[in-house]
Amino acid sequence: MISRIVTLTSDFGLRDPYVAEMKAVILSICPEATIVDITHEIEKFNVRAGAVALASAASYFPKGTVHVAVVDPGVGTRRRPILVQTGQGVFVGPDNGVLIPAADKEEITHIYEITNTELMLSHVSNTFHGRDIFAPIAAHLSNGISPTDCGPEIDDAVKPEFTKFTSTKETLIGEILHVDDFGNVITNVREPEAREFNDGDWLTVELPNRDLRLRFAKTYAEAKPKEPIALIGSHGYVEIALNQGSANKEFHIRIGDRFKLIRNKKD
Amino acid sequence: MISRIVTLTSDFGLRDPYVAEMKAVILSICPEATIVDITHEIEKFNVRAGAVALASAASYFPKGTVHVAVVDPGVGTRRRPILVQTGQGVFVGPDNGVLIPAADKEEITHIYEITNTELMLSHVSNTFHGRDIFAPIAAHLSNGISPTDCGPEIDDAVKPEFTKFTSTKETLIGEILHVDDFGNVITNVREPEAREFNDGDWLTVELPNRDLRLRFAKTYAEAKPKEPIALIGSHGYVEIALNQGSANKEFHIRIGDRFKLIRNKKD
Amino acid sequence: MISRIVTLTSDFGLRDPYVAEMKAVILSICPEATIVDITHEIEKFNVRAGAVALASAASYFPKGTVHVAVVDPGVGTRRRPILVQTGQGVFVGPDNGVLIPAADKEEITHIYEITNTELMLSHVSNTFHGRDIFAPIAAHLSNGISPTDCGPEIDDAVKPEFTKFTSTKETLIGEILHVDDFGNVITNVREPEAREFNDGDWLTVELPNRDLRLRFAKTYAEAKPKEPIALIGSHGYVEIALNQGSANKEFHIRIGDRFKLIRNKKD
Repeated sequence: MISRIVTLTSDFGLRDPYVAEMKAVILSICPEATIVDITHEIEKFNVRAGAVALASAASYFPKGTVHVAVVDPGVGTRRRPILVQTGQGVFVGPDNGVLIPAADKEEITHIYEITNTELMLSHVSNTFHGRDIFAPIAAHLSNGISPTDCGPEIDDAVKPEFTKFTSTKETLIGEILHVDDFGNVITNVREPEAREFNDGDWLTVELPNRDLRLRFAKTYAEAKPKEPIALIGSHGYVEIALNQGSANKEFHIRIGDRFKLIRNKKD
Repeated sequence: MISRIVTLTSDFGLRDPYVAEMKAVILSICPEATIVDITHEIEKFNVRAGAVALASAASYFPKGTVHVAVVDPGVGTRRRPILVQTGQGVFVGPDNGVLIPAADKEEITHIYEITNTELMLSHVSNTFHGRDIFAPIAAHLSNGISPTDCGPEIDDAVKPEFTKFTSTKETLIGEILHVDDFGNVITNVREPEAREFNDGDWLTVELPNRDLRLRFAKTYAEAKPKEPIALIGSHGYVEIALNQGSANKEFHIRIGDRFKLIRNKKD
Repeated sequence: MISRIVTLTSDFGLRDPYVAEMKAVILSICPEATIVDITHEIEKFNVRAGAVALASAASYFPKGTVHVAVVDPGVGTRRRPILVQTGQGVFVGPDNGVLIPAADKEEITHIYEITNTELMLSHVSNTFHGRDIFAPIAAHLSNGISPTDCGPEIDDAVKPEFTKFTSTKETLIGEILHVDDFGNVITNVREPEAREFNDGDWLTVELPNRDLRLRFAKTYAEAKPKEPIALIGSHGYVEIALNQGSANKEFHIRIGDRFKLIRNKKD
């Protein structure tokens, strides 16, 4: 069931040799591994942003992929290294919630604490479990060891509180999941809910600093240059976007910000 | 003839999971693919900069390489997805000119519109054809399908107007093709033409803001520190450079700027 | 003994197609190569920073890895291209010291000047030996040629002067090796020497702009938020760090800066 694909998600950036050290450890143990970077540009220590990136990309990988995510402000403390098994693959990383949203989409079957020191590097530092624990575990999994060899099953892994939207007849309160490199603002509201709040293809949105009435478009390009629009992005969420411009720069929105959708009245 | 190498060029940046999603799709269809990033740091929506990067790198890849380029401001509109076959490889991307300069260097044999939905992801979004159309097409090509399976041949693909230089007896008017990360300014003038305009190894250049008389050097290092020089760069074009400094910072030149070479007089 | 893994370290950045051109050349000669980027974000022309990054990561790679490093301000001049053979692998790059600290850790057995033009690209530019000399040599080595085929053995390769710390009874004078993307400040002092200068788990450090009394911690997370601490980093060196903050931003330290450790007195 293992595909020999290992993905990496972290907040390490690309200036330092940390990512390469993880790859070196993986290839030393499993020379046939195909390693794919999801991103290493997660905002430092932002567990939630790491979780969102991993949850976006993971489901496109083939069955049996091993995903490693290291956004780990608690490295070296008592927070546990864990392994989450799903119907599709395996997720390896710290027990701080970073793995859970991605794994939830694939239905979690078992969670194990990683305790088997024979599967780790011989010297485990206090500051870099990505290299010393998670990379070797991922490589051994790619070589076909069983998750049950890594440590005992647990049932109390940290579940992140990803805010869900709440809605009434008149309003829906949602949250900004992500702002991408184009400046597109991605919400946690999906198409069916948004459709309930739109009217004649217009959406009324109250942002922290500004109220907007946005045309509901199909593509970025159908808007006039710099016209703000709403559309369904490539992961199925409502996005606020500017054709060939940055909605984020225009409206100064941050990840985690709340917003309201107002039910449109025919008036 | 297929090498199983797939290259990727885009303006997606490396912060978001978009590039990883393309790789996931490719590896799901063609697990043996070797994927090489050309760059994902193309200026957003700058089709021309994407075309220049791809045209620089493509010819170094082995015969049979499949090149995917996604700088695609018109995604989701009626602009067509296309496939360009050359004597050396295959180019996949939007019909906006981004593929043509690279393909032209290898002699274009056929261009096809991509219409075969069986070779795309089952749900094609309006905003991310890189993942939903171009990546799966590239993977199927790496698996050996024929370009003719992708859709009908066309003869009206968009040809970009890449400005050519014009020259008279006295002057040559050229254009800035690229400014690299070192600040080297790369022109669209090649060595033979430049040689006609130099004199005793000096080149007289009129930039938008400044006139320069540049020593024609062989290497960056033979200039004094911060001395501006002209030299033939690694792709055969005339570059304006500063030894261990940034010519771009010094002279504030932008991609697309025009400049003049003035024929030197013995005086 | 060759692993078919080739690593790349450079100051090229990721915006330009230069790194991809090196990979294209390697895969053209050795299609089975697995190429791993150590980093391409070395500060431009900073040979020392390139040497530090390579020396950090190289030892984690399997036996037989070929490492290419191109931080090369003297490209095209008389500085020689060289190949350094160690008990673990091979290092390829310019003779300016960038390879030596990494190779020294693995015990250097032979150093060769690269002179065999048949193993280079047919046209060698004056400005991009990474693509035209070092990449093809690395690929041929991965294909199994002997280092002795590349050129004559030499015994006068450039040895970089990496400042060592000096210590007296009262003080140790060390140097800042690296500042990582988290803002952690990595010194050239290892744990045993630092332990001689600490007292009850406190370390007294004189930075250029500021004197600090730092708690000697085991993990970033055991410090209070923004509390500066000293700890042993993942490569065994003393680091100055801020829990979830940037020590570098707080104390304005630069690579190469000197600092003093003061022997603590029981008082």
